[in-house]
Amino acid sequence: MQRHFEVVEKELMERLLAMGGLTERMISSAVEALVERKTKPLETVAALEDEVNQLHIEVDDRCLKMIALHQPTATDLRFIMAAIKINSDLERIGDQAVNISENTALLLDEPQLKKKLLDIPRMAALAQRMLKDSLAAFVGKDVALARAVIAQDDAEDQLKSEAFHELQQLMQTDSSTVQRALCLILIARNLERIADHATNIAEDVIFIVLGKDIRHGAEAREPAPPA
Amino acid sequence: MQRHFEVVEKELMERLLAMGGLTERMISSAVEALVERKTKPLETVAALEDEVNQLHIEVDDRCLKMIALHQPTATDLRFIMAAIKINSDLERIGDQAVNISENTALLLDEPQLKKKLLDIPRMAALAQRMLKDSLAAFVGKDVALARAVIAQDDAEDQLKSEAFHELQQLMQTDSSTVQRALCLILIARNLERIADHATNIAEDVIFIVLGKDIRHGAEAREPAPPA
Repeated sequence: MQRHFEVVEKELMERLLAMGGLTERMISSAVEALVERKTKPLETVAALEDEVNQLHIEVDDRCLKMIALHQPTATDLRFIMAAIKINSDLERIGDQAVNISENTALLLDEPQLKKKLLDIPRMAALAQRMLKDSLAAFVGKDVALARAVIAQDDAEDQLKSEAFHELQQLMQTDSSTVQRALCLILIARNLERIADHATNIAEDVIFIVLGKDIRHGAEAREPAPPA
Repeated sequence: MQRHFEVVEKELMERLLAMGGLTERMISSAVEALVERKTKPLETVAALEDEVNQLHIEVDDRCLKMIALHQPTATDLRFIMAAIKINSDLERIGDQAVNISENTALLLDEPQLKKKLLDIPRMAALAQRMLKDSLAAFVGKDVALARAVIAQDDAEDQLKSEAFHELQQLMQTDSSTVQRALCLILIARNLERIADHATNIAEDVIFIVLGKDIRHGAEAREPAPPA
């Protein structure tokens, strides 16, 4: 029975990694369309969304069956609980990529802003790296890498605040930029949300490995371990 | 054993309803601050967030223990799977209320816009009703009410699109409104997201009762039942 559980656990992990790979491609396609001003990659985003949605349903169904058939406990059960959440985060990352794609389509209908994209490509690169690292931490059960992902979330928030500030100033000084700057503000918000979801995945990895729920700053509230 | 499961199931449902009640109060406090231009209710939002976050962690822990101790199957297991997701949706609804609260705080530092709040109070009322109804559907295992919630989501999206359009025009014609209109755009987006989470909860209720996963339009793709 335990042997068979390892097989289905491996299959589940493969599905989640496939979803992760698809969402990474959705983000990079949306960002490519934005930076290179091409519409073609937007079609890729739409096509991949369907695949992500199908896997989303399939993964939840597998988790349910794994619990019903194998009655897992301890680490195995924590793995499935985390898989249910990672599944939900990956699906939402796909949604955010679709939103980026929609705002990019609006931007491509208009002339390019003189200020171009500010730090948005940097925000995209950071969010993408956080997602990639959170999935690598999941595969490798790598707590140190998961913590490194969580530590980067503040940098993404900071980049978003700066982008908001600059784009707001642009709208105030030149009303012809309002629609385009608003699209970029919403894209910056989507990228920040992707980084938040990657952070959630990293927190789930720590939960699987250490059995500790560190969300909502729970770790900071704990007494320090004895030296 | 089954008797005891019913007791812990009831306790779990009570925790989720408590969270639901807290998030409803967070939204109504944030919206009260916005509409009445008062800062006091914003303090309520911050205080309630801590309670929601504590329940978020507690509910996940209870779900894990219920699976480990009771090895539930069929309806009982579906209930726990749905509880894990509803827990996550409620926590995110709380986050959205905090975001509304933050943008409201910025708005209260500025003079009121002449156009005031457009349809935003209507969006808030609809999102709040959807949340309330989704939780009532959960308690009553009421599929018809859950479907009614899902059917309202398009109306919320429509209201958001209209608010975006009007606020964008306002920013274009009067640059002094940019910051305030942007706050309102972000608040409209938060309310739309709350409606999305209420829709997710309604979909989970249908999953608990009928055992059918209707997300991503899966129901529409099914062949029609025989007449």
